[in-house]
Amino acid sequence: MTRVIVVGGVAGGATAASQLRRLNPDIEIVIYERYRDISYGSCGMPYYIGGDVEKWDSLTNMTPEKFRDRNIFVKTEHEITAVNSKENTVTVYDKNSDTEFTDSYDYLILSPGGSPKKLPAVKDAAQTFSLHKLADLDYIVKFIKENNIKEAVLVGSGYIGLEVTENLTKRGIKVTMLQRDERIYKNIEADMNGVLYEAMTEKGVTLKLNTEIDYVDGGKAVLSNGETIDAPLIITGVGITPNTEFLNSSNITLKDGLIPINKNGQTNIDNIYALGDAVMTHFQHVPEMTIQSALAWPAHRLAHIIANQLAGDRSITHEGLLGTNIVKFFDYNIATFGLSEKDIAEIPHFTVDQKQKNKSGYMKDASPIHIRVYVSKDSGLILRAAVVGTEGADKRIDVLSAHTRLGGTVYDLINIEVGYSPPFSSPKDVINMVGYKAIEKAEDL
Amino acid sequence: MTRVIVVGGVAGGATAASQLRRLNPDIEIVIYERYRDISYGSCGMPYYIGGDVEKWDSLTNMTPEKFRDRNIFVKTEHEITAVNSKENTVTVYDKNSDTEFTDSYDYLILSPGGSPKKLPAVKDAAQTFSLHKLADLDYIVKFIKENNIKEAVLVGSGYIGLEVTENLTKRGIKVTMLQRDERIYKNIEADMNGVLYEAMTEKGVTLKLNTEIDYVDGGKAVLSNGETIDAPLIITGVGITPNTEFLNSSNITLKDGLIPINKNGQTNIDNIYALGDAVMTHFQHVPEMTIQSALAWPAHRLAHIIANQLAGDRSITHEGLLGTNIVKFFDYNIATFGLSEKDIAEIPHFTVDQKQKNKSGYMKDASPIHIRVYVSKDSGLILRAAVVGTEGADKRIDVLSAHTRLGGTVYDLINIEVGYSPPFSSPKDVINMVGYKAIEKAEDL
Repeated sequence: MTRVIVVGGVAGGATAASQLRRLNPDIEIVIYERYRDISYGSCGMPYYIGGDVEKWDSLTNMTPEKFRDRNIFVKTEHEITAVNSKENTVTVYDKNSDTEFTDSYDYLILSPGGSPKKLPAVKDAAQTFSLHKLADLDYIVKFIKENNIKEAVLVGSGYIGLEVTENLTKRGIKVTMLQRDERIYKNIEADMNGVLYEAMTEKGVTLKLNTEIDYVDGGKAVLSNGETIDAPLIITGVGITPNTEFLNSSNITLKDGLIPINKNGQTNIDNIYALGDAVMTHFQHVPEMTIQSALAWPAHRLAHIIANQLAGDRSITHEGLLGTNIVKFFDYNIATFGLSEKDIAEIPHFTVDQKQKNKSGYMKDASPIHIRVYVSKDSGLILRAAVVGTEGADKRIDVLSAHTRLGGTVYDLINIEVGYSPPFSSPKDVINMVGYKAIEKAEDL
Repeated sequence: MTRVIVVGGVAGGATAASQLRRLNPDIEIVIYERYRDISYGSCGMPYYIGGDVEKWDSLTNMTPEKFRDRNIFVKTEHEITAVNSKENTVTVYDKNSDTEFTDSYDYLILSPGGSPKKLPAVKDAAQTFSLHKLADLDYIVKFIKENNIKEAVLVGSGYIGLEVTENLTKRGIKVTMLQRDERIYKNIEADMNGVLYEAMTEKGVTLKLNTEIDYVDGGKAVLSNGETIDAPLIITGVGITPNTEFLNSSNITLKDGLIPINKNGQTNIDNIYALGDAVMTHFQHVPEMTIQSALAWPAHRLAHIIANQLAGDRSITHEGLLGTNIVKFFDYNIATFGLSEKDIAEIPHFTVDQKQKNKSGYMKDASPIHIRVYVSKDSGLILRAAVVGTEGADKRIDVLSAHTRLGGTVYDLINIEVGYSPPFSSPKDVINMVGYKAIEKAEDL
């Protein structure tokens, strides 16, 4: 019988296993997960801290027991330490029994994810946490309750930093955010991130730029700027390292520590597939450029593709990603897709900025949306889009994403027929206006 | 000098004139508007009643004075009563002086709009209004204030009926809505309109189905069901008749009282263009089917096209419409695009229904969105989409619209890369799930 081993049981791996079982009742499926939990909604964890997620249980989709009912065998606390792609075997370390064994596969699905980077200055302090696994969430919530935490230090301003800051604040905890350089949330353009500062001011978050923790002294943190601040809870969100070291001897090609995949979801080795945060793929709209696939949407999409590939339908393939992403920070939403600003600098392009209300301008609760697009001079395609606003920023990035994905140019945005009514847009929505402005701008090029 | 006459100065006509002036500083432009006001946001009027629009002035864009500064001549209270397309003249009736004169044009732009249908049983009652022109809004608001109105009867349940009901309720006025048959808001599927009943129950709106007003007796309305109810204010919203009678002798082709246009925005007569509520065009995605263009988005789009055509750029053309539309009713949003249910019945199709939360299911304020799509069996195109929900229904119709417009099939919805974060969607958004379900359904066809 065909045997499939899945490495990693969080979003990507668990979903791929489920879908494969659905497509093929006979195949043997084993999931090895190196930590305690599988198949949970890690993106929801910050919202459990703040109370928008009320039930812990709702964060978990599948348990090992439920998987067993579907004839999928899950081994938690089991870490894959090596892959032998010639022998089609993996080395498995069972943390519970502290033993190692070998298992063999016909197909291997890699979904190893990443690990949060640790900061040497704080990592040994008892009050330091990252929020990556479900167990991390449990530790944090328990720690907050047991120590009646009223203040916290958040190191980093990525999406985890922002979401955790919002949710700690909602919980009544006063947050000091530290950013080691002078630019927060680098997913968005430096000159478009003003709403983040506004939100912090409105909500009482203290931000210290160009500041790190030098060391922790009991309940205090001594900062690089000379200050000493209360730090009864420290949460770090300073990026992710892909968990791919175990592949070093595997003959699986790695690039910058990531696993490149082809349109079938395959690594360089035919019977080894990969998905999730440790994967490198290409931009859908600029195929010669690569992108790390470290978001939930791509993990779920690739799970479906890989399951179908393994089940024998080779027609369902991966087209690449736009990299559409969004973060909520209090009332503000920030979204982008496409190449990085740095990569775009090398491509002949022009930009179009449009600031316009999210609904008809005469509505008293209308609020501004700022869209910037970077347009290929050659093709008119939107290489990158950035959207900042409150309500409705998510709509605009999704519409831009759907349009660009199908090859729509910036000029053609004028023709997107939005559902118009005063609470939702203008008769010429901000999306349409980006197109009208692009047409004018192109005439002057 | 080339002379352009524009018939009708509300959204379509005023916008076309503005854009034409922008493209060509020399052309002579005259707007004839038969009523008091020009260039106002008629879609915002219901929201002025409820207070979401705070400033009356914000509803008006341009005044005759501002137009004059741009060398556009506006004559209000001037009605065009006939067009002589052989002589290139129009007959103009000046209401103020009760005189008639003839004016001549090189190009004519028709934007005559429609008039609200009147109900014989109530039209002569002093407390009966429709909400179509800006002057109507003024009458209604003055009447409410002067008579300290606390109750109102709303006849009809179209988008005007719903929006006015919501806004009267917000103003503290108790509304009784009458619908002459048993189905409200026929833009949406009968089995998807349940949220409208829910909203009425929640907000204290009384709905009477299969009920009309037989006659008005002072401040009371006697209903067809035998009841007599207080009716100190009656607002009717029972549809629009296109204002095209003045074209009967013009040789301009009319169809069902509407003015068919081609891709240039032209009527059957080359130098006569038309846009706005009285225009008939075709569906973009099903070009053999016609659609009335009675919404603001198409009026603005066609204004741009016609202005460019007249200014000499024949490359900017009209591609047809999807008919994307949306209405807000209290917390609920209802949106559709595409063919009517009736027209679809004649095309081989299948439907896909998906009910899913608008954000990640574990978020406590997640609420359901219901999408139904009608899919062409031949092409996989979405012939019609219907979306019902609260927050985020507008996003889904716009994404479906952008996707369908570019020829995207229902099956390809699985690849729309949405901006995912728990407050905005699921990793497989409801849009994606419609695609996944369609693929399964197609396998069983």
